[in-house]
Amino acid sequence: MTASRPLTPQASATIATIAEEVGVSVATVSKVLNGRADVAAETRARVEESLERHRYRRRIRRQSPGIDQIDLVFHEFNSGWAMEIMSGVEAVASAAGLGIAISQLDGAHRPAPRRLDALVARRPLGLLFVLCHPTPPQQLMLAEHRIPFVVVDTDSATSASVPTVGSNNWNGGLLATRHLLELGHRRIAVISGPRDVLCSQARAAGFRSAHDEIGLPLDADLVRYGSFYVDGGHAHGLELLAGPDRPTAIFAGSDLQAIGVLRAARRLGLRVPDDLSVIGYDDLPVAGWTDPPLTTVHQPLRDMAGTATQMLLELARGTTVATSRIDLVTELVVRESTAPPATTRP
Amino acid sequence: MTASRPLTPQASATIATIAEEVGVSVATVSKVLNGRADVAAETRARVEESLERHRYRRRIRRQSPGIDQIDLVFHEFNSGWAMEIMSGVEAVASAAGLGIAISQLDGAHRPAPRRLDALVARRPLGLLFVLCHPTPPQQLMLAEHRIPFVVVDTDSATSASVPTVGSNNWNGGLLATRHLLELGHRRIAVISGPRDVLCSQARAAGFRSAHDEIGLPLDADLVRYGSFYVDGGHAHGLELLAGPDRPTAIFAGSDLQAIGVLRAARRLGLRVPDDLSVIGYDDLPVAGWTDPPLTTVHQPLRDMAGTATQMLLELARGTTVATSRIDLVTELVVRESTAPPATTRP
Repeated sequence: MTASRPLTPQASATIATIAEEVGVSVATVSKVLNGRADVAAETRARVEESLERHRYRRRIRRQSPGIDQIDLVFHEFNSGWAMEIMSGVEAVASAAGLGIAISQLDGAHRPAPRRLDALVARRPLGLLFVLCHPTPPQQLMLAEHRIPFVVVDTDSATSASVPTVGSNNWNGGLLATRHLLELGHRRIAVISGPRDVLCSQARAAGFRSAHDEIGLPLDADLVRYGSFYVDGGHAHGLELLAGPDRPTAIFAGSDLQAIGVLRAARRLGLRVPDDLSVIGYDDLPVAGWTDPPLTTVHQPLRDMAGTATQMLLELARGTTVATSRIDLVTELVVRESTAPPATTRP
Repeated sequence: MTASRPLTPQASATIATIAEEVGVSVATVSKVLNGRADVAAETRARVEESLERHRYRRRIRRQSPGIDQIDLVFHEFNSGWAMEIMSGVEAVASAAGLGIAISQLDGAHRPAPRRLDALVARRPLGLLFVLCHPTPPQQLMLAEHRIPFVVVDTDSATSASVPTVGSNNWNGGLLATRHLLELGHRRIAVISGPRDVLCSQARAAGFRSAHDEIGLPLDADLVRYGSFYVDGGHAHGLELLAGPDRPTAIFAGSDLQAIGVLRAARRLGLRVPDDLSVIGYDDLPVAGWTDPPLTTVHQPLRDMAGTATQMLLELARGTTVATSRIDLVTELVVRESTAPPATTRP
């Protein structure tokens, strides 16, 4: 590393001093300080040289520790979700001048006592839990420490008193299934997430409601629950598609699951969407990259994260939040993995 | 939120008190506190109830602010890279009991002055820059504040005095190209990253060296530079594959670029690997999900991040780091997107 060299203390230069010296406006100096792109390279270089010479940056205000940061707690990092959530939180937090600390719980859905202690010890402005939440005693403990928290979750398992941002899973299930029914499919399977996760049940309920709307009975064998990852979709896909009375469409619980279904179809020599329609869930970037690109239910993860961060900032300011549970709307994104069923099948 | 309720102060319960009361070992109580999975649910519930009653968790040691955290700075969040890096950093940091703060520079490759000020004001244990790095004056400023930093980057643009962890890009380019040559391809294109990024040049140089090894001349028209994202691969793929003298194999600069090439091939009715072999770079999870799964160069992103974090911890402890530049090795991962060229072509 570069060795530290003795410093000559400087009289305090202001932005105005710098601007005058370089012969530019105060606004231009400010733009350079903030890293804005709309400054000519040559001007930027001259301003930076002047800032450097005046050691402008050295007068850094030491912030009060622990009040300028929110803690973002994931149940795990391994989901395609995490990056979308992080982008949504970052946009709101950085606009508010706040830092973000991140951690993950190795797949657990509630923090172990020492994990929560470590979070509290950092004295954050607030805690944002993603797909995990503090237990009722932990909620009490956070209240005692005056640390607000908000949960980002797809299900509604948390009690009404817990500030939570989610999305409407039942509606997502309904929209996806209606789309397939409208295309003419009559034998449709759903692979939802794990059975003990409430959002899986909500989506399966939406699937059921769409059938009820047109009076189509449901084959219980076509309603499956499994892991949200590629393997879960692959295993159920193989099972569902291997038999003689296979479904003509599969509604998967996540885009990754849908990728597993695509793989199962490929292995069995079925073409998507000619022989099989597939719908995903989430609308992660990867949904646009598959072959064919996935029709999917858009879950507004960035908006959910941004809304939750806003809610957290309001709670930290002492504002009473009007609604403690917000569900954002889900939308169907039609790409190329769905089509009417083949009129003649083997 | 749950309202705060008045607390009855308790005499300090120790882990031993709790263990005795519940009738379990001290080790078991410790396991529950740390959220370990190997405790029976019923035992866990009893221990937690006792911890709760004794308000064990309330005695949280307030940590000195700013020394228990490292700051992870990305040039942007939009890359498949970011999650891999984060996982690698988290594994090492959490084992060392350190928190992680994250931020991103909206695509800039060096922090704007105010961004760096904000980072320094948090007084982190150290800074980890990913695909971006401080300028020489900024390096001096960090040294003055006694804040060590390490850069995770694929290129070698940083000076020898800057502690950097990267990977061997020239070798990656060599391995990928040798694989295609060994399969019998003689007309191979490379789409590298942006021309002004050193790693792009290193990979293209490896591509060239593999040709030199067997004395095969290079067609300059087959060496392309472009964005690392899906669009970059798609645009170059269409151009390269539309002509009559198209290459039989394309070595892409990233897995996302390779996905763009797969899409271009599909659009032109070319089968992969029958009509065209494709190799990616990075080996992100998505490389295993494409159709067909991608042969790719594994860039050890988690290891790179973990190694950089270790290096940062050593610098923070005041240890002199033996080598300030470490390149980890790249490996070829052969999946299904490469095969010998078709003997007869249209």
